[in-house]
Amino acid sequence: MKQAEIRSDIAWATPEKVVIHGLDLCEDIVGKIDFGQMAFLQLFARLPDERELRMFNAMMVILVEHGITPSSLATRMTYAGAPEAVQAAVAAGLLGLGSVFVGSLDNAARLLQESMPDPHNADIDALARTIVEDYRARREILPGLGHPFHKPVDPRAPALFKVAQETGYDGPYIRLMTAIGRQAERKLDRALPVNVTGAMAAVASEMGIQWRICRGLAVAARAVGLVGHILEEMRQPLATALYLRTEHEASAHLVPHEERDGR
Amino acid sequence: MKQAEIRSDIAWATPEKVVIHGLDLCEDIVGKIDFGQMAFLQLFARLPDERELRMFNAMMVILVEHGITPSSLATRMTYAGAPEAVQAAVAAGLLGLGSVFVGSLDNAARLLQESMPDPHNADIDALARTIVEDYRARREILPGLGHPFHKPVDPRAPALFKVAQETGYDGPYIRLMTAIGRQAERKLDRALPVNVTGAMAAVASEMGIQWRICRGLAVAARAVGLVGHILEEMRQPLATALYLRTEHEASAHLVPHEERDGR
Amino acid sequence: MKQAEIRSDIAWATPEKVVIHGLDLCEDIVGKIDFGQMAFLQLFARLPDERELRMFNAMMVILVEHGITPSSLATRMTYAGAPEAVQAAVAAGLLGLGSVFVGSLDNAARLLQESMPDPHNADIDALARTIVEDYRARREILPGLGHPFHKPVDPRAPALFKVAQETGYDGPYIRLMTAIGRQAERKLDRALPVNVTGAMAAVASEMGIQWRICRGLAVAARAVGLVGHILEEMRQPLATALYLRTEHEASAHLVPHEERDGR
Amino acid sequence: MKQAEIRSDIAWATPEKVVIHGLDLCEDIVGKIDFGQMAFLQLFARLPDERELRMFNAMMVILVEHGITPSSLATRMTYAGAPEAVQAAVAAGLLGLGSVFVGSLDNAARLLQESMPDPHNADIDALARTIVEDYRARREILPGLGHPFHKPVDPRAPALFKVAQETGYDGPYIRLMTAIGRQAERKLDRALPVNVTGAMAAVASEMGIQWRICRGLAVAARAVGLVGHILEEMRQPLATALYLRTEHEASAHLVPHEERDGR
Repeated sequence: MKQAEIRSDIAWATPEKVVIHGLDLCEDIVGKIDFGQMAFLQLFARLPDERELRMFNAMMVILVEHGITPSSLATRMTYAGAPEAVQAAVAAGLLGLGSVFVGSLDNAARLLQESMPDPHNADIDALARTIVEDYRARREILPGLGHPFHKPVDPRAPALFKVAQETGYDGPYIRLMTAIGRQAERKLDRALPVNVTGAMAAVASEMGIQWRICRGLAVAARAVGLVGHILEEMRQPLATALYLRTEHEASAHLVPHEERDGR
Repeated sequence: MKQAEIRSDIAWATPEKVVIHGLDLCEDIVGKIDFGQMAFLQLFARLPDERELRMFNAMMVILVEHGITPSSLATRMTYAGAPEAVQAAVAAGLLGLGSVFVGSLDNAARLLQESMPDPHNADIDALARTIVEDYRARREILPGLGHPFHKPVDPRAPALFKVAQETGYDGPYIRLMTAIGRQAERKLDRALPVNVTGAMAAVASEMGIQWRICRGLAVAARAVGLVGHILEEMRQPLATALYLRTEHEASAHLVPHEERDGR
Repeated sequence: MKQAEIRSDIAWATPEKVVIHGLDLCEDIVGKIDFGQMAFLQLFARLPDERELRMFNAMMVILVEHGITPSSLATRMTYAGAPEAVQAAVAAGLLGLGSVFVGSLDNAARLLQESMPDPHNADIDALARTIVEDYRARREILPGLGHPFHKPVDPRAPALFKVAQETGYDGPYIRLMTAIGRQAERKLDRALPVNVTGAMAAVASEMGIQWRICRGLAVAARAVGLVGHILEEMRQPLATALYLRTEHEASAHLVPHEERDGR
Repeated sequence: MKQAEIRSDIAWATPEKVVIHGLDLCEDIVGKIDFGQMAFLQLFARLPDERELRMFNAMMVILVEHGITPSSLATRMTYAGAPEAVQAAVAAGLLGLGSVFVGSLDNAARLLQESMPDPHNADIDALARTIVEDYRARREILPGLGHPFHKPVDPRAPALFKVAQETGYDGPYIRLMTAIGRQAERKLDRALPVNVTGAMAAVASEMGIQWRICRGLAVAARAVGLVGHILEEMRQPLATALYLRTEHEASAHLVPHEERDGR
């Protein structure tokens, strides 16, 4: 069998040094660049300038922590069973970052990136009208708009767009995302402003981040947040109480009357 | 059944705002603090000062990327099967961050923290001697010393200790870790300098990070690194070639001669 | 906030007994029913008759073991890093059972179930023609047909269909799947017989298993197989050798000539 | 670099056939052996005889389903976020099968296997006394005894031991486990009968299953059970209601009075 090439350009090491994307870990990275710069380096294979870094940091911090969510509960339930395997507890919390919670991020970024191959020569308003009409015709939900709890406006979207404006990232993708929201409100006659994943998708597109990897940013940010939940679960656990209570309630209707004493 | 209290102090939200560790996400966090500060906030429930942040960033960046490892290969193998579930690929790579690769971090931090309950009144050298003798007597391996590839010296340990010196974190835990290395070299008569996990453990102890959560820091940092591997796997895949080649080699001895043609 | 109902019908327990889908675990299950019957019970909430059980077992055993695959390599890589967390090694191997390897199972089952709402009054051949033409028009790949390695015929499909015939499960879904393969071969002018996932999808449809849960069967079966890989990795490891070799090869082009000695 | 051997003895394939542990998948496995036999084949590299199979099945079915547990809740929470990735939901539920819930299985099996290298020439009662005294002296908890809910007796232990008796597996390991329970009750003056993991550990030891892989059996069995929970969550979801309720309760104390209206 002919051997296909196996090659990675990210890092190499000798006993004396480690080199990551061309930077010497011990000379150029540790003590010199921060966690946000390092995350940028992993994605872009180069260090950011100041405005790139500020925009990137804004995207990363917005996704770290969402309080008690299905994701943080999965982490806490796993920690309750395997406190010796903190990595498994973090992993369990990441696994639910799928179509329901962060899928709209990928979908919105894909919509923006695929519908505007040449962002500098696009008729944004016409494009937005077509997109909204197409989604309506197919009866599909437009990604990145509206929020079940944060309404009428998801406050995280304007917060992110404000940073985009201050750093010069308020370009065609953000305009398109906003125009889609406006068109959708008009057509569907209800408030549908851009939400946090729509805003993230637009900003990521402005930064040149491909839609396929957008979910990865959300996952890395949330990994940081889940460590905070594990730390709290160590000090002030809730998982065991919650599962016992849930078990009791969920199966109560199954237990025959004469058997209920021992429970 | 009496209901046990279920309570989390990390975050709360109303439709108009999200508050995390007392900071308003949209007012105080997005555009104001960076990814390293946010990670610190999750761990300490407060923002760091400048020297805390520099030390913390140094710890986080050192763990992000290690090139092709069992961890990044697990991520790439998972991505090859489920490219639509980036969260699963990251999670798979985190799951092997256990006793073999990052366990020495927890173990070294635990050793340092439990053997020195009052770090300001400790006879470091005597303590190091006792610890090394105890481990020798129990024929256990001292955590945080030596490295199979980075020898004689793991260059990441002095790099981290240099930042500790510059930021004023060169305290008793770092002195104890170093003294353990010196004692071990003397007793075992071979080079056993502090390695990257030993250095991390000492610095984390200086920062007041409990040993139980140290692995969590490594996991969060690595999540960032694994996103870089997924991005490369998207553009320049190696997983499929590697598995096909491995399958062929691993089962070659099982295939009867007359059946080898089709493979 | 009004409390939504939280309810599960699967099991209940008192200190003296555990009842699962109405059967007493200690009286009716342990020593009385086997692992295949138990898996059936979990899915159908009742025990199978003999022919149901034989068909179900045939589906489950066919998916247990596939040799060295991306899935078993992810498990072995994870075990190499976290041998104390066998659950994490199994989980890592399951995570890649996504769109590439088992997705065609769900997709084929969905295609069969959605295109034939009334299986007893369907014109199978006409339906197959329409389906193949629709997929060709949309330039989509028909799920459940052809195999890159097992060609011209995936031997597992006729093996499964043979059991279906012997147990009386050779109904309209199997006929439709087979007809789709025949039509596709005619239209695309190349051998495209039903493969193992296509056969599984057809049999699962015959048994009344909804397409959404089909992947779950594959996942449960593979969990059993991955335990076998962990056992072999314990006795005869390959993960560390494979990762070291891969690291060396993948980064060789990055290492400057003068640094190559130490590697 | 010299290439270390990479070799697996489990399976091989040609385009025309797949061979697993020496058996032809299509000729000897599908339609011929059942799911329990297949699981046994993966572990022992041979098929079981009738009494081996009955004992093995009893062990596997006992672990499949435990109702609402931290494990099934982690699965359901993950499914709520990523319904398209059923493999991730199963994996999330497996990840918590660690030291708290199934660790006592490995620990009890290890204790039994390491303390009785020659089971045919052991003074069981003397051994049990020594073991209990050693654990008491070290203030460690004896694995495999007692249960917080199933008391005074975990009914699953006698159920498993009954099958062991009927199949001729009631040997020295079961006697030792039982003797440890009796000794512990005497010394600690409270009811501490063998529980389900202690019984499993003893039976697995009788079957020649090494303690290191015992957790793997539990994990594989539970994977089957978790598919049942996903199926129920599809039809009758509880995850979203549970998380919303928990979020509300857990953060209520943080929300200022004047902000409580919108929640």
